[in-house]
Amino acid sequence: MSGNQVRITDVVARDGFQIEPNPVPTDVKVEVINALGAAGIHGIEVTSFVHPKAVPQMSDAEAVMGQIKRFPGTTYSVLVPNLRGAQRALATNPDQVNLVVSASESHNRANLRRGTFETLEDYKAVSDLVHQAGVPLQGGIATSFGCPFEGRIPTDRLLTVVKRYVELGVQAVSLADTTGMANPVQVRRLVGLVRERWPGLELHLHFHNTRGMGLANVYAGFLEGITDFDASLGGIGGCPFAPGATGNICTEDTVHMFSEMGVSTGIDLDALMAFARQMEQKLGHELPGQVIKAGKTSELHSLPPNVVL
Amino acid sequence: MSGNQVRITDVVARDGFQIEPNPVPTDVKVEVINALGAAGIHGIEVTSFVHPKAVPQMSDAEAVMGQIKRFPGTTYSVLVPNLRGAQRALATNPDQVNLVVSASESHNRANLRRGTFETLEDYKAVSDLVHQAGVPLQGGIATSFGCPFEGRIPTDRLLTVVKRYVELGVQAVSLADTTGMANPVQVRRLVGLVRERWPGLELHLHFHNTRGMGLANVYAGFLEGITDFDASLGGIGGCPFAPGATGNICTEDTVHMFSEMGVSTGIDLDALMAFARQMEQKLGHELPGQVIKAGKTSELHSLPPNVVL
Repeated sequence: MSGNQVRITDVVARDGFQIEPNPVPTDVKVEVINALGAAGIHGIEVTSFVHPKAVPQMSDAEAVMGQIKRFPGTTYSVLVPNLRGAQRALATNPDQVNLVVSASESHNRANLRRGTFETLEDYKAVSDLVHQAGVPLQGGIATSFGCPFEGRIPTDRLLTVVKRYVELGVQAVSLADTTGMANPVQVRRLVGLVRERWPGLELHLHFHNTRGMGLANVYAGFLEGITDFDASLGGIGGCPFAPGATGNICTEDTVHMFSEMGVSTGIDLDALMAFARQMEQKLGHELPGQVIKAGKTSELHSLPPNVVL
Repeated sequence: MSGNQVRITDVVARDGFQIEPNPVPTDVKVEVINALGAAGIHGIEVTSFVHPKAVPQMSDAEAVMGQIKRFPGTTYSVLVPNLRGAQRALATNPDQVNLVVSASESHNRANLRRGTFETLEDYKAVSDLVHQAGVPLQGGIATSFGCPFEGRIPTDRLLTVVKRYVELGVQAVSLADTTGMANPVQVRRLVGLVRERWPGLELHLHFHNTRGMGLANVYAGFLEGITDFDASLGGIGGCPFAPGATGNICTEDTVHMFSEMGVSTGIDLDALMAFARQMEQKLGHELPGQVIKAGKTSELHSLPPNVVL
């Protein structure tokens, strides 16, 4: 994307719901995905084709893909962890397949039970299969900005992971701040390094607001020319390492910030906000989103009656 | 302040506690102020010398000023709304007196029952008195980035308010985003305009996180060379127009972001976090601060026991 336009991919149905304390029924997932599509969101990460025993919350992946409405302006992507997942995913006709590997060895082993570069080797067969099906592929890099077990990731290691993805022929790479460890200075530095080495590569950013810097990091990425960001409706989600902490940045808050900055998203913010407020009720707990509580900056208030102008 | 160093002024005892649902006892205020001073915070807005009937939460202004410990590296400032407030304030020996006027006419009338420029006229007598006492004066401008009743403030009007403060001989001007309406692009534009016209003027920024953009706005201000920011311990505070919405940006989160960005504050972040966690208990409700929930980025976690490296 070029110029004064950004694209938002909502990840609530995958990254957000995966960490909800209570399982989210399939029809609620479908309703959320359809509402996001109707509001004109650019992308939705619909589900993950992981083994149902590994992530029970995603055991309805086929059902969700089968029941959603597909809006023409929205890219419906799915996450796959391996060849079996890719086979299942392709049978549901996704617009895009997302891979993920952690930049840090320990986080990858905790998540996928094998090393970062072993995983990337295994993705060769996955990418072959997905390419044969003519489906675009995105390479996600978890813990790009820091690992909860290891801390900062050596830059060379991160760039090597990007390189492997480029060799696999991905259409885009997504740098993910999985547990909210990024800061604006670091975002600009790492984005700058990737941009310098692969100027033509489509680069996405996925931030969490775990330490309050979510939108500051979005702004930092935008200053470096990034126009593709992930976010989660209502800020639904969390952090497995800190109960009560915030997870993904909030979709409405992100859309609102860009709108206030004069950057178009084309998304119907009012519709998003109305639906996020409903989600607060449906999930039975408060959500971290701020704009659903405060209203948009443009929503003015009446003067107190005793004020004489 | 120059170079790679920022200064944080904590406003919890005034801006934060003013909106707490239950009155905060004097000894709790004193304890908080002393903890902030001990942690090496650069400034504390201790209290406001308003009429006790107007703001009952600040009726203990003299008592608070009389009981706090004064740490040598900390500037203890007080807010005054008029000449009577200034007389009361000066009797307590503050390091700095803060004035505030709203850039928007309606907000100023709602707050102070007179117009913006009438208020600034009245401040002439106040500034004379404060200058005679040899105490530095700061001019705060509420609703600098937007008014909940009127929306955006015409730039010329804002610059005229700055000009009046400069004519009053203030040492610094503070642009306040009273109800969290600022965005990063606007922050850079307005700061740039003020800087261009008064290059030598000390400029402070006071942000709220009402719509999630608080730290993005801090980063935007920092990019324009601003090194003085207000924040509130734990993010204590709120928004009178939106019950449940967030108020002031959080002191620990702000200090943490700068620390992560490699910008020194000299503040003891661990001490701040420990004390903010206590405040959550003392006030009996959750606070908006994120770092107290998630821990610092540098606080790493143990690998799950089943992970083989």
